[in-house]
Amino acid sequence: MSTFHFYHPIEIRYGDLDPQGHLNNAAYLTLFEQARICYLRRLGLFREGQFFLDIGVILADVHIAFKKPVEWGMPVRVGVHIVKIGNKSITVEQNIVHAETGEVFAAGEVVMVTYDYRTGRSIPVPPEWREIIQRFEDL
Amino acid sequence: MSTFHFYHPIEIRYGDLDPQGHLNNAAYLTLFEQARICYLRRLGLFREGQFFLDIGVILADVHIAFKKPVEWGMPVRVGVHIVKIGNKSITVEQNIVHAETGEVFAAGEVVMVTYDYRTGRSIPVPPEWREIIQRFEDL
Amino acid sequence: MSTFHFYHPIEIRYGDLDPQGHLNNAAYLTLFEQARICYLRRLGLFREGQFFLDIGVILADVHIAFKKPVEWGMPVRVGVHIVKIGNKSITVEQNIVHAETGEVFAAGEVVMVTYDYRTGRSIPVPPEWREIIQRFEDL
Amino acid sequence: MSTFHFYHPIEIRYGDLDPQGHLNNAAYLTLFEQARICYLRRLGLFREGQFFLDIGVILADVHIAFKKPVEWGMPVRVGVHIVKIGNKSITVEQNIVHAETGEVFAAGEVVMVTYDYRTGRSIPVPPEWREIIQRFEDL
Repeated sequence: MSTFHFYHPIEIRYGDLDPQGHLNNAAYLTLFEQARICYLRRLGLFREGQFFLDIGVILADVHIAFKKPVEWGMPVRVGVHIVKIGNKSITVEQNIVHAETGEVFAAGEVVMVTYDYRTGRSIPVPPEWREIIQRFEDL
Repeated sequence: MSTFHFYHPIEIRYGDLDPQGHLNNAAYLTLFEQARICYLRRLGLFREGQFFLDIGVILADVHIAFKKPVEWGMPVRVGVHIVKIGNKSITVEQNIVHAETGEVFAAGEVVMVTYDYRTGRSIPVPPEWREIIQRFEDL
Repeated sequence: MSTFHFYHPIEIRYGDLDPQGHLNNAAYLTLFEQARICYLRRLGLFREGQFFLDIGVILADVHIAFKKPVEWGMPVRVGVHIVKIGNKSITVEQNIVHAETGEVFAAGEVVMVTYDYRTGRSIPVPPEWREIIQRFEDL
Repeated sequence: MSTFHFYHPIEIRYGDLDPQGHLNNAAYLTLFEQARICYLRRLGLFREGQFFLDIGVILADVHIAFKKPVEWGMPVRVGVHIVKIGNKSITVEQNIVHAETGEVFAAGEVVMVTYDYRTGRSIPVPPEWREIIQRFEDL
């Protein structure tokens, strides 16, 4: 089993719930996304105020396994664990866990492609990113 | 100017932003709503795990004045201040302020009507609510 | 009572609902917003593929009166009616009505300020906008 | 390649976009979800006005492959194709395609588990569902 070196706590909002009273399935991707950006910020690869067109990643693939419904008021945190850096892609394991018990509510994988939003084309993973992420993840 | 006795810190998510890179206007209502529910929880009028059909309030009216765009990464908190308790309605002042400087990004008012979701009808404000809120707000 | 010359039909999504099973209050602003952009497109003031940073309007003020809950599957359309063009602002009446019966679920006003997103400053309403809108609305 | 017998047209909203100006990744799940419910309605397995706690499906697994960004104003429709009915689960292929050219923007699979929201437990696929879906999908 993989080890997460980064978790971001996120508060479930009433606005994340659906008529079943649970975290709506689309909101899992919103939480995953927020945690990924906070991960990039933590590693110094994204700075507040930076124009988002310069982030340079686009999603290629997402998978989520839903284990147990998330309810309002539950303290959760969202894990981000980069497991592979390819030529033009970065593979991330993510999960949503109870902040206290560690119980896993959902687990998934996300493949991001490094991307130039100005030209609309994929680009090689910048060497600086590769180096910083490898060091952080101990790849 | 009114005094807020309750603020709830909320993290702006990437998913709250729109193509202009700012907090989308609809998300202000999501933040207001989340802060109101946390206010009710704080006063013991709503409990986690409680079925949401039992909350018993429905929105009648909302007003927001947008002062200054909110960006990702800005630390904000959302104020909730009940200023009037009518027969079947509760008037709330709300705002979104910078958590450190206090700068006001948006200010608004929300009128909630106490409501029975089972019957689909408005109901008088419960005496327990009136008493607890009056004490908290010093009305 | 004002006359709406533009309505845009919008399908209520499951994702717009909240635990009460009704259209969530924040979603009203999402519907209002979508209808305003379709109004601008209809008048030729916004074109698909145009970069959204060039739309040049920012919200200053929003008011909504909620009349009756909207449920999934209800056929609704969203009205847009510009009632006033100021120096740097445009005032819009909006509503959400049943597409067949005309019953009003919500009514509101939105004040937009013409804005240069590159410089972050308000700008005068472009004469072309004023002329086209006045003609359409018979102002 | 699989054949879709059901497509639901959905209008992309400004509120679905993110700072990159594209359909946000979480919104793909919102579109998938809306199309699935419309599919159930079409087959008579869900009726408007029915309480959503009675729908009786919960998501177990989701996968999306993003092929090409979706922009505002693009006419899209969302495909739903049930490919397998298990004991307590239903596997659905979904996609988002250009309504005119058929170009595929995204493709994915969703596994739903039949579920009793009152007891919080999975239940066998109702025989009525199995029969109606098999007939529609020619399984």
